[in-house]
Amino acid sequence: MPKVSDEYRLARRQQIVAAGRRCVSAHGFHKTTMADVIRESELSAGAVYGYFKSKDEIVAAIADEALGTVDELFRTILADERPLAPAEVMRTILEHVITLAERPGGDVTRIALQAWAEAVHNTAIAALAREKYTLVRNHYVTVVRRAQADGTVDPDVDADHVGQVLFGMLPGFVLQRLVLGDVTVDSYAAGITALLGGPPAQQTGERG
Amino acid sequence: MPKVSDEYRLARRQQIVAAGRRCVSAHGFHKTTMADVIRESELSAGAVYGYFKSKDEIVAAIADEALGTVDELFRTILADERPLAPAEVMRTILEHVITLAERPGGDVTRIALQAWAEAVHNTAIAALAREKYTLVRNHYVTVVRRAQADGTVDPDVDADHVGQVLFGMLPGFVLQRLVLGDVTVDSYAAGITALLGGPPAQQTGERG
Repeated sequence: MPKVSDEYRLARRQQIVAAGRRCVSAHGFHKTTMADVIRESELSAGAVYGYFKSKDEIVAAIADEALGTVDELFRTILADERPLAPAEVMRTILEHVITLAERPGGDVTRIALQAWAEAVHNTAIAALAREKYTLVRNHYVTVVRRAQADGTVDPDVDADHVGQVLFGMLPGFVLQRLVLGDVTVDSYAAGITALLGGPPAQQTGERG
Repeated sequence: MPKVSDEYRLARRQQIVAAGRRCVSAHGFHKTTMADVIRESELSAGAVYGYFKSKDEIVAAIADEALGTVDELFRTILADERPLAPAEVMRTILEHVITLAERPGGDVTRIALQAWAEAVHNTAIAALAREKYTLVRNHYVTVVRRAQADGTVDPDVDADHVGQVLFGMLPGFVLQRLVLGDVTVDSYAAGITALLGGPPAQQTGERG
């Protein structure tokens, strides 16, 4: 028998994760079964179980993929040497969330809402959410510290507390977009800029 | 047969809603059945179905009760004649959310997370969430307009957009409190004040 290459294994794994994303986005976490994911993946049950033992593991892989792009986004944001203004950073993140949500093959923000509900009762998903969201929130705290160094956020405020609020603006954006349907990057970013102030060039000294 | 009084009916209804709140808070929406609620309520199945035809209707009643207290809170906030500062209003709302969450008999914020997930796939819950959250968000917009009249928010910004963001800070607070466990009213309110500025007396003219 030929040795199964790493590339082959990775492609099969991605095929299953993509099938899981379509199923959970369309029908929700509870109404999706492993049998649904197997059917959607067009692989055998044995093949699928060779990669993932449960729906929880597939949801973890969906989260890993989406949040990997978020890690990359924060690296890009922090690599920019111009002074960071939180309202500008938030607009960049909102645009990224919409890009992720609108990719073909399942809206990951719909899956995020499933994961939040599940995290309240399912210890595996709770541990996963805690680990992933702590990493994402740490990126926001890094942005705040950088903005403090840049003079766009008061250096005397607690960066952890500000990071909680910046991170905390995203679930409300996703929820309003999915449930109320009338929130856009432009409207939400305009609201954030109105509250936080614009980019440094337009800011008063008191905010800097 | 004696006529069943309105008080009696209201008390029975509240008994069922309280049972539903305990069940859904403890086990989640999907793992709660009408049979669970009937058992928990200590009423007969016929009695329970006389008030509620489905879990969706019980969740609607749970939301009505909790959001009724939120309406009342906004009335109190708007009745205060001192200048309204958004950061102060947000602290008052966060304190109220914690009061609701910590009432005995089921944490309604855990139930809210279930409702968000369900709203993505369940048209009855989606319609309910849209109706209720539109009303709540309108209260935030009213607060913003009042703050604009009071000179604590720039009169030229769009109150609807700012209302989206103020409303949008709450889901992220609830989610971090339940999933990460390290967010408190004090930490989140401190972060909001750091971003938005404090009460009017401490504000610079540029923010007013």
